[in-house]
Amino acid sequence: MPTEQEMKASLQKYLEGFNEGNSEKVISLFAEDARVEDPVGSEPLKGKASITTFFQQAIPSVKRLELAAPIRGSHGNAAAMAFNIYVEMEGKGAVIRCIDVMTFNDDGFIIDMKAYWGPEDVQS
Amino acid sequence: MPTEQEMKASLQKYLEGFNEGNSEKVISLFAEDARVEDPVGSEPLKGKASITTFFQQAIPSVKRLELAAPIRGSHGNAAAMAFNIYVEMEGKGAVIRCIDVMTFNDDGFIIDMKAYWGPEDVQS
Repeated sequence: MPTEQEMKASLQKYLEGFNEGNSEKVISLFAEDARVEDPVGSEPLKGKASITTFFQQAIPSVKRLELAAPIRGSHGNAAAMAFNIYVEMEGKGAVIRCIDVMTFNDDGFIIDMKAYWGPEDVQS
Repeated sequence: MPTEQEMKASLQKYLEGFNEGNSEKVISLFAEDARVEDPVGSEPLKGKASITTFFQQAIPSVKRLELAAPIRGSHGNAAAMAFNIYVEMEGKGAVIRCIDVMTFNDDGFIIDMKAYWGPEDVQS
């Protein structure tokens, strides 16, 4: 099981990958058989191929991710973070307030990502 | 399924119950067969009796809960919040940085609570 520090470093790299426009950096954090549910309540993506397509589309549409509070760990194989997603929608700036929960496999890769944000959490 | 507003109101009441020292208010938010894993990685509590005992012990030991960022909803039956728990440990003030994820049943009660905080998230 990865350490708390290793899991937090992975979430930090996730933010950096977005902010550097580096989809490879983000995708490399995920396991081959990872599951991504973004937003929670939508049909989950399963497997690295779907996840790769998802992030290759998502990352260029995001201007900036910014932590809203320090990343949290756990006493298990998961870490979580509250952050803001700054995007451009229909030519206007908007922010999506989000909390991501990442669960890790024994090799330190993200095996499950859940993104909590609802329609009310999108503000222009 | 509860609305996003109803789920966020439930999380707000959870905070209020702690801050008012009102364990009844907190416990009333949970379903009879709810599951509480606090912190994530520990043995989960199952059922209202265990959960009642847990909150009756926890609430008096907490000085204040304070949101670190606005509560997040989802497109499903869950909501999440990043907050700080101010406690007194061994006569000194400490803060635990936490993210709670609450999942709701169709009647609007919390059926699952996961609290993400690790040893590093406790600071005196």
